[in-house]
Formats: sequence, structure tokens, C-alpha cells
Amino acid sequence: MSDRAPSAERAAYYEHIGHNHMAPLWESLHSLVPPQPRPRVVPAIWKYNEVRPLVMEAGRVISAEEAVRRVLILQNPGTPGSSSITGSLYAGLQLILPGEIAPSHRHTQSALRFIVEGSGAWTAVNGERTTMHPGDFIITPSWTWHDHGNPADGEPVVWLDGLDIPLVQYFDAGFAENYPESQQPVQRPEGDSFARYGFNMLPVHHKVSDPTSPIFSYPYARSREALDTLYRNGELDPWDGIKLRYVNPATGGWPMPTMATFMQYLPAGFQGKTYRSTDATVFSVVEGRGTVRIGDDVFQFEPRDHFVVPSWAPVQLAALDDAVLFSYSDRPVLTALNLLRESRT
Amino acid sequence: MSDRAPSAERAAYYEHIGHNHMAPLWESLHSLVPPQPRPRVVPAIWKYNEVRPLVMEAGRVISAEEAVRRVLILQNPGTPGSSSITGSLYAGLQLILPGEIAPSHRHTQSALRFIVEGSGAWTAVNGERTTMHPGDFIITPSWTWHDHGNPADGEPVVWLDGLDIPLVQYFDAGFAENYPESQQPVQRPEGDSFARYGFNMLPVHHKVSDPTSPIFSYPYARSREALDTLYRNGELDPWDGIKLRYVNPATGGWPMPTMATFMQYLPAGFQGKTYRSTDATVFSVVEGRGTVRIGDDVFQFEPRDHFVVPSWAPVQLAALDDAVLFSYSDRPVLTALNLLRESRT
Amino acid sequence: MSDRAPSAERAAYYEHIGHNHMAPLWESLHSLVPPQPRPRVVPAIWKYNEVRPLVMEAGRVISAEEAVRRVLILQNPGTPGSSSITGSLYAGLQLILPGEIAPSHRHTQSALRFIVEGSGAWTAVNGERTTMHPGDFIITPSWTWHDHGNPADGEPVVWLDGLDIPLVQYFDAGFAENYPESQQPVQRPEGDSFARYGFNMLPVHHKVSDPTSPIFSYPYARSREALDTLYRNGELDPWDGIKLRYVNPATGGWPMPTMATFMQYLPAGFQGKTYRSTDATVFSVVEGRGTVRIGDDVFQFEPRDHFVVPSWAPVQLAALDDAVLFSYSDRPVLTALNLLRESRT
Amino acid sequence: MSDRAPSAERAAYYEHIGHNHMAPLWESLHSLVPPQPRPRVVPAIWKYNEVRPLVMEAGRVISAEEAVRRVLILQNPGTPGSSSITGSLYAGLQLILPGEIAPSHRHTQSALRFIVEGSGAWTAVNGERTTMHPGDFIITPSWTWHDHGNPADGEPVVWLDGLDIPLVQYFDAGFAENYPESQQPVQRPEGDSFARYGFNMLPVHHKVSDPTSPIFSYPYARSREALDTLYRNGELDPWDGIKLRYVNPATGGWPMPTMATFMQYLPAGFQGKTYRSTDATVFSVVEGRGTVRIGDDVFQFEPRDHFVVPSWAPVQLAALDDAVLFSYSDRPVLTALNLLRESRT
Repeated sequence: MSDRAPSAERAAYYEHIGHNHMAPLWESLHSLVPPQPRPRVVPAIWKYNEVRPLVMEAGRVISAEEAVRRVLILQNPGTPGSSSITGSLYAGLQLILPGEIAPSHRHTQSALRFIVEGSGAWTAVNGERTTMHPGDFIITPSWTWHDHGNPADGEPVVWLDGLDIPLVQYFDAGFAENYPESQQPVQRPEGDSFARYGFNMLPVHHKVSDPTSPIFSYPYARSREALDTLYRNGELDPWDGIKLRYVNPATGGWPMPTMATFMQYLPAGFQGKTYRSTDATVFSVVEGRGTVRIGDDVFQFEPRDHFVVPSWAPVQLAALDDAVLFSYSDRPVLTALNLLRESRT
Repeated sequence: MSDRAPSAERAAYYEHIGHNHMAPLWESLHSLVPPQPRPRVVPAIWKYNEVRPLVMEAGRVISAEEAVRRVLILQNPGTPGSSSITGSLYAGLQLILPGEIAPSHRHTQSALRFIVEGSGAWTAVNGERTTMHPGDFIITPSWTWHDHGNPADGEPVVWLDGLDIPLVQYFDAGFAENYPESQQPVQRPEGDSFARYGFNMLPVHHKVSDPTSPIFSYPYARSREALDTLYRNGELDPWDGIKLRYVNPATGGWPMPTMATFMQYLPAGFQGKTYRSTDATVFSVVEGRGTVRIGDDVFQFEPRDHFVVPSWAPVQLAALDDAVLFSYSDRPVLTALNLLRESRT
Repeated sequence: MSDRAPSAERAAYYEHIGHNHMAPLWESLHSLVPPQPRPRVVPAIWKYNEVRPLVMEAGRVISAEEAVRRVLILQNPGTPGSSSITGSLYAGLQLILPGEIAPSHRHTQSALRFIVEGSGAWTAVNGERTTMHPGDFIITPSWTWHDHGNPADGEPVVWLDGLDIPLVQYFDAGFAENYPESQQPVQRPEGDSFARYGFNMLPVHHKVSDPTSPIFSYPYARSREALDTLYRNGELDPWDGIKLRYVNPATGGWPMPTMATFMQYLPAGFQGKTYRSTDATVFSVVEGRGTVRIGDDVFQFEPRDHFVVPSWAPVQLAALDDAVLFSYSDRPVLTALNLLRESRT
Repeated sequence: MSDRAPSAERAAYYEHIGHNHMAPLWESLHSLVPPQPRPRVVPAIWKYNEVRPLVMEAGRVISAEEAVRRVLILQNPGTPGSSSITGSLYAGLQLILPGEIAPSHRHTQSALRFIVEGSGAWTAVNGERTTMHPGDFIITPSWTWHDHGNPADGEPVVWLDGLDIPLVQYFDAGFAENYPESQQPVQRPEGDSFARYGFNMLPVHHKVSDPTSPIFSYPYARSREALDTLYRNGELDPWDGIKLRYVNPATGGWPMPTMATFMQYLPAGFQGKTYRSTDATVFSVVEGRGTVRIGDDVFQFEPRDHFVVPSWAPVQLAALDDAVLFSYSDRPVLTALNLLRESRT
């Protein structure tokens, strides 16, 4: 219906009903209900060797205090001005320099931190701090006070921020508040939440009242050990290599209700088969070099590079060295809405 | 941060990083993470006495066959060109004339039909037809074949179509197919699904494999009887009157994973108190006259009028006559994502 | 190991450890962990023409007031003195005469009532009464105040009581209290719960806090209509005829957490195939005559007869007339414990 | 009603109805539906210094091969001949000597092993072996092939077996089979399941199809570390000390659907307050000395002692040294049936 211009009679009718805030479905049905996804989001890669100087320059352009969060947003080239990397997700690279504090606030948006470079900075969530190391996955759940800091004698630390900012904006459901001071008080020693919930045990009277994980740091050393062990045991999926998802240990579900996170291992020489999925996905390269084919694009990746896969794009991964990839997507949302579709060929 | 223009140095830096598809979060943080929702969607009402002639005129402008679906989209005045009534939801008024068929197709999008005017047309879903009467709520779940028809000796029938078209588009997760013929074959007598699942009983070996309700018609006569009985029994909520939600009888959950549906009764003289909710909601007036205050707007409503409430807008309902309102929203989505917030004052 | 007597040395050892409250597993392993179930419960039938005079005689032997509950327990012949009809379940026939009250109490045990004969008596649960008619299924959930009564101008009413008394006793988990008066006050009109929860709708702010159904009467007229409709539509399972389970409309689960209830229809001439299940089941015949083969026993059944099927016994149902059977079992327990096993041949 | 003998008339009536396998509820109502639990199970302790010689003697009385499982059952003194330690649970001490194999079989019953003395023996479950160390908690889920062994150069190993044998027997729901050979083949290296599911990550395509934990060993070193950390962080419950429950990492639920397991730490000098619960519980002392008051009984405990707490008995724990207690109960069953009641005073 939408291929050619409507007749004059119809055009007049459309104008008429337009005054009543109505429009003819039949002129747009095909684009509103397409035979398969047509994302505006495109495949893209941010090479760390190009990005890093710009991130470091931000450290001179603005202070963490003034910026509140000193982050460079990775903006999808297909949706300029959107502040988003996929339709529903945001990605940014945050820099915190020695001696800085990113002041405490809270918001409806859920956030993940994936440490890219540097050690020793901390995130505080709900009165407990966690120290950052490259490859650690840390969460700051919806509506929890959080601030970040870096000791005066530390080194610059860069991490990937993954948030559901576009999603919360889309649903007009976001609230935010600043904490009265720049840092919230520390109430429990580091590691308390992990001891309480992270050892395949839970406090005997713990009630699940919230879909969010009660542990907020998943150290790289442990995730890496799990992948190593499985690889030595002979596990290898032709599409994914060895791929684990992070879980909320109190439910077995996702760490947060809006974002899934994954870590996968591709042994040197791995040539993955092609898959597709409706959850557009952001990758952060932890170790190794390789290539990813996304639709018609092919990207070479190295450690600390970031790339994005649109919904339903065919994807093929290959590794030159032993490679480790972290990734995140809105899979929990698609699953809850019965909109996840996957295909493997 | 975003109140004034950046310095020349910063502006140069922003342009520089823009070439790498990056942007400074600190310039947009406040608008990306606002203190409370700022929807572009605005309150609006479509008066049926104005809309009805335009709907009927559509019957002369295009045939159901040619249109595939002869629907006038109710488009939110705050988001012109969006084909949506709230951020995530679509609403339209569909007309089917005696002797017409709206041909069979299926799509990822979930649809609800709420019958506004006329009786005797039918919707077929998965091989079973259901006959329409004003006030009936009918579903065509995601990825089920469905077609609509009206017997040659019938009367024009108009219904409200509620779909999650914008949502599925937003997530780039939609698929669609046409059925090889205009109508799917009828495989079971009308009422079969209701007998199987609608009587507070289920087939003994039924497994829940899908979040969608296995009954697809909820007749008005029964919903009205429930509301009547509760009113006679003295139930009355100061905000809602008497408000029930439709359920999937196999789970107690929502009839479909993306849309909640409600029916409520306001006795003559009811003066509701003010509430807010993050689920923007579309209303269809079934019976009675009254007023609705939405933020700073006040609308008079009569039977068959439609109005929309944006996220977090203060709402107050009042009834001149005994009134019955049907409504739908994306509440299941917000609940799954832990984004539903409600307030009553 | 257990086939022959142990040696003298072993016997001495067994006696020795017995003083320390210990016993050798190897002498009893085979009976403790048998290759398949060996129930002590046996198939049995209670013919109503024999049982009815005894039930009526109870009306002369003791008053409802003195008895608290004037019930004849149906006691499995395989477990005399057990007060149970299967290992975990109790069945009894309760008689209430015109003008009588069975006083109000509450207990941990869950109870179902299935009306066998007579109309017009009532059960009150949580401040709401429900009137009894033959074939109605009524629940009195765990720890809810309940009393029964029969108007002075009524007729004798007999119902089947199904309780989890043996189960609660087995787990040493039972508590009970008497209400200070013989009847609890009536707080809501009859039918209120059904209007609130029974019409495939729920109150908009209802929270599921309890596994028990919020409706407590499932009228026979509606269950019968569902079965009739499905039969007319051509449904017929070779083992079960047409078999529905009653559900909790707020969850789709069982009406109570310890007992499943079913109603099934066998058309005249139906010759069912053989099935087995680990949930021992009690049947109450509502309509029609037929036969049931349970292991090596064959029983003729008529309306108002009751029979019991042990765990894992092969069962075959046949109907001379159009027959309707109500049944209940501990299936929710076996399902929760992953102990349900079924077989069809 | 049950306090005195019935009249002659009633006695005659009771005898009469007894021929029809019926009994008067009113004579037993009070004992069938008691005001609170009256368990036959009594508090008891098995002192390891008395029990150990008897366990070792079993090693001379019978071989593991001949015994199939060389276990001394801990039999509750209140229920002699029952082969059970609580109403629903079984406990036994199993001995395996160097060079022995306990042959492979599977059964509906779920089993837990808690290592009491000795290291180096193994349990194989579903093709994977796990090596035993004191304090380790190991599961052999329902219907999984399992065998145990001890290398020829090892030491005697004793563990506590906890099974739901009485429960499965009660429900007449048990099945069992022997494996054609004495040992099942080893298919995966030790630790594979733990790497796959134990690190707060899960395989990306894992589906929960079963309520049982996919990890089958919970090493003592890790559980002890969690307790230590929480104690150092200042956690201390006045009733429980520090008490964690073991979880199924794929669901956050219990490791097995019929048995809950716990580990708790009581610092030297701890004087617990009194609690009660309807889940009768079996304790195994791992470290430390202390006392437990159970109703009117007071027991001194030392490492490797075992004691049992009946349903609803008041319990008070105290520690002379830093003490660690493992325990198990049927709490998942009571929870599923809505029969768990707890009280703290």
C-alpha cells in the first residue's frame, strides 16, 4: 500500500482526519508491521587505540566532580544524537583519575560497570565498596545510592558503563535524586555481600523481594577460572565457544531485570558458525585478537575494543589468539515480553 | 551542566570525539536521567461523535480487502507521525462492513480488540471464531493467525485495536507473515477455548508453555456482572471505583505479556481522588458520562469516547451517570522491568 | 539381603547397636527402597445404597453440635485404624440435618467439600457463606474459620469431606483453634468472592500471598457446562474421557496446596484404556453407572458411590450411561516433591 | 469426645459401621486435629565416641559390596523399628574402607552426604566423581546413578547419609534400579559441574528442567569462608548465630526438592535464644563443643556428634568453643505445602 502516493481523494481524506489526530493505518501497515526486523542501529566498532587518547583527554577537559560522571557515550552511527548504542541500551567509557570522586546519586536506571583498564578505583553501592580490577563485572542496581572514587595514589581507571537509559526514557519511567553528600557512608566491609550471597549459600531468612542480584561484584578471576576449566574439560559450542551468563544467585535469573551479561571464551583458531538473535548486543574485548563478521561488516578486534551487534544481524566470531569477550544486551526484556527469537545456521 | 553553551575548548573537543561516534555524557546527563518522567505524550481525547463520521467515511474511501486492516490510528498529538498513542502502544479504530473480510495474517505484535459499536462480526484466532458484541474484550496473541469478518446481512462494526506495535518496533523484534488464503479454516466451534479454560478449570494435562491467555474472548456480560455484584456488595475504592483486571486463567497473569487490560465501574456521582502511575493508559468509555482530569486538562467523556493518560500524569475520574471504562496499558512490561511506580494522594 | 535370618554373629551385633538406637541398613534396604511402590492401601468401594442408611443413622446417634463434625470416616481396608483412605488423605461423609450447626473452628488442615445429596445447607468461610447443591465443590482453606449449617426448613444434606489430615499429622505440623461462638459473623453477601475472582478477572491491586484459591465455591452447573461443551465439540481422551482440573484463578495452580481436584465426563459406552499414577485418588460418582478396574479388582459404580485407587495401581474406567466423576488426590504434593510418575498403556 | 468410653448404643453402632470400613470422626477428632503438634519423634543425640567403634565394627561384620550400602541407621528412640530419625527423614552413618566400592544404583529417593571423618573417598553422580573431605556437603539427586568408592591406599571414610526414604515410602512413590556394573563410567573430570554452575554464572543455554541443584558438591572450605567472613563483619543472630542455607544456583531454591540443608557458626560463648519450627531437624557437629536444649532435654555436643530436634520443640543452642553445625530438614516440603510455622522468643 505504501509504495505509491495516495489518490487526491484519499490525500484529502488523510488531511481531514489528521486534524483529529488520526491517520490511515493502511498507508503505513507494512512499515509498522514489517516481515522482519529493520533496525536503524548499525554494526560498529570503537578501537581502543583510537578511543583511549580521547578518554584521557576528557580528564583534562572536565573534572569528575563537575561532570558528575565523566563519560564518553558510544553513540551508534545509525542513530546519531540518540545517546544510545542499541535501541534500548546505552554504553559509555568512564574515566576516573587518582584522587577523584564521582558524587553519590541514585536513579531508576540500572547500571553495569565492566572494568577496561586500571585497578584500585572503587564503586560504593548501598554502603559497601568494591574495588575494581580489569575484567570485573560490577552492578549498581536501580534506585541504589552509588558513588565512585579513586585513591589519591592510584592510577587512572577506565570502565565500560552499560545502562538502560534509552529504555527507561522510552517508557517515561525514570526518577533520580542526588545524595546530600558527595560520598555515602561505608557501612559494611568490602566483600560482605559476596560472603552472604556468593558462595552458593544464602542467609537462612533471606526473602527475594527484588529481581536484582544481591551480589554486586563478579570478579574476573573467578569467571576466567570457570571458562578455563570448561575449556580444559572439552566444552566447545560451534557458535559461541564457551559462553556463560552471569546470574543472580538468589534466583538463578539475570543480575538485573533489564540487562543480561555474558562472558565467553574463544580458543585460538576458533571459527564460529553464524547465529542471529533479536537482542542487540554490546561487546567488550577482554583478551585476545580476532574478527567478528556482523552482516556485511567485518571488524578486527583487540583487547579493550568495543563493538555492537544490531538485532537479527548474522554474527560470526573468530579468534586468532585465545580470546575472552564480555557482552551485554536487553535479553531479559525480550524474554519477559516473549520477543526473543534466535536462529543458528 | 546543560543550561549554557560549552566553552570553545570543550566545543572543539566534542566535535573531535563526535567523529569517533562519541559524545560527552555530562552535557546531557540531566535530560537523559531526569528527576522524574517528562513524557512527550500528552493527554488527549477523541470524541466519538466527531470520530464516528470519519470512521464511516473510511468505509467509502477503501475496502477492508484493499486496506488489509481498515483502521484509523489514534495518534498522540504530542508525537505526530509516530503512529502511536503512548510511547509504547498503538490504538486504532477498525471498521468492518457487512460482507467484508480482513484477510488472515500473523505477526509478533500482540493485539487486543475492544468492541465499540455493532454486533455480529467475528475474529478468528487459531481456527476458532468468536462473535463480537459491544464491550467484549478479545485478544489475538502474538504469532497467531487471525482474520476478521462480517456476515453479509450484518451491521457495520467498529472496534478499538490496541497493539504493542511501537514497542515491538522499538526493540527491532517484529516478524510478520500473510496466510496463503484470505481466511484460515475453522477447526473448532465457537466457545471451545472458553469451555476449556474459562470456567475456573483447565484440561488436566495442560502445560503452560506461553505467557498468553488460552481464552481469547472475555464477554462484556460477564465482566459487567462481576462489577455489578461487587458494587451491590459495597465495594468502592476512592481512586478507582471498582476496578478489575482481566487475567490469563492458566497463570493468573496478564492476558498478554505486553498489555494489561482493565474494566472499572464508577457509580453516578463518584468523585475520584488523584493518582499517578508510570504506565501511560488508553481508555475506552463503555457506558455513562463523566469527566477526567489529567494534569491540567479536563475532558468530558461520553460512551465510545477514547482518551489517553501519559505516564505519571495526575488523574482524577468523576462520573455523572453510572459509568464503565475499559482501559489498557503496558503495565506488564513495566512490572517485569521493575519500572512501575504508583502514587495515590 | 533380607530374605533369610542373619548369622548369630551379625544378630549379636545388631542387638548391640540397637542399644544405641542404630540398625543395619543392609537388612532392610530392599524394603526401604523398593523397585516400585508397594502400597498398604487397597482398592475399595463404598456403595451409597449401603452407606446411606448408616449415615442417616448417625443423625440419630449424635447431634452435629455434640459431634462438632458428624462424619463417618471412609477408612481404607488395607490400613485399619488409620482414619485415612489413602496414605496421605482422609475422606468422610458428613451429615447435617435441618436446623443444625457444625460449630466454627479453624485448623492447619485444608478441607474440600463435595456435595453428595441434598441442597440448601451452607458453609461459611472467612465471613462469607456459600449454599450447597449436589455436585458443587467447596473449599475451606488452611487456617480459615469455618462453620456449616442447615436452615430449620431444609432437608438433610450429605457431603464428602476430603482433608489432608493424615499428611499434616505425618509432618507433625497441625494447629487448631475453636471460634468463641458457634458461628462466625457473616461479613459479605454470598457470591462476593466469586464475583471478585471467578470471572477471569481479579481486583487490580490483588497480591497473591497464599497458594490457596480466593474463590471457595465451584458450582456444579458451571463445571457440567464446561464438560458438556467440550464433549459436544468432539473432545475425548482414550484414558480419561474429558477431564478437567479445578484451578486457583489467581495463579492457575491447584485450589489448595495439598489436594488436587478433578471432574471428568465419560460418555455412555466409553471404554477407557489403562493408566497408572503415583497419586492415590478418591472418586465420588456424580452421575451415571459404570465400572472401574483397579488392579485385580473390578467395581460397579452408581451415583453417590465412592471408591479409592492406590498409588501406581492400573486403572481402567468404563461407562454404561453418561457418567460424571469427581476425584481428588495429593498430586500437588507429589508434583512439588518431584515424585509424580504417570504411565499410560 | 474421646475422653471416656462411648455408650453401649454408640459402641454397637461403631461396630456396625466398622464392617463397612467406616468410623466415627467424633471419637477421634481431637487426636486427628490436635491444637498443636504432638510428635512421636523425641530429641536424641548420638555421641560419636560411642558410635564410632560400632561403625568401625560394621567394617568387619559385612563388606561394602555385600551390604550394597554399609550404613548404620540412626533410628529415633520414639519410633523404634521405623528406620527413620524424624517422621519424614532418614539418617545413617556410612563407612567405606580403602579399596571398597558401594555399587551403582539409582532410586527416586534423594540423598545427601555430609562427610564426618576421613578424606579421599569419592561419590560418582551422572558420570562425574567428587572427592570427599570432612565438612563437604554432597548430593545425589533423585533418579541419578551413583556409586561410592575409596582408593586402595586411602583411609576409612565415614559420612552422614540423609535421605527422604520415609517420605517417599509414605507417599508410595518410590522406584529403584541397579546399574548393570558396579561402577558407572566416568564421563567428565572432577569439578566440571562446579565450573559450569558454581561460579555465579550458568551456561547461556541452560534450561531449568528439574528442581535439583546442578552442582553436587559444596566444599567445606568455601562454606567455612563465608561464615568466617560474616562473623568478622559483625553478623550475629541471637537465635541462630550465623546461619546460611545451601542453594541451587540455577534457581536460588533448595539443593533438592525434599531436603533443606544449613550450616551455621556459633562463636565461643554464644548463648542462643529459644526458637521453634515445624521442620524437625537433624544436626551434625563439625567443629566445637557446646550444648543444645531441646524441650526438656539438654545435650552436650562435640565434633561429629549427631542430634535430632522434633517438630515444634523449643531449641536453644550454646557454644563453648567456636562451633560449626551442619543440619538438614524437610523444610522445602513444609514450605511447598504451606505447613511451615516458626516462632522465636
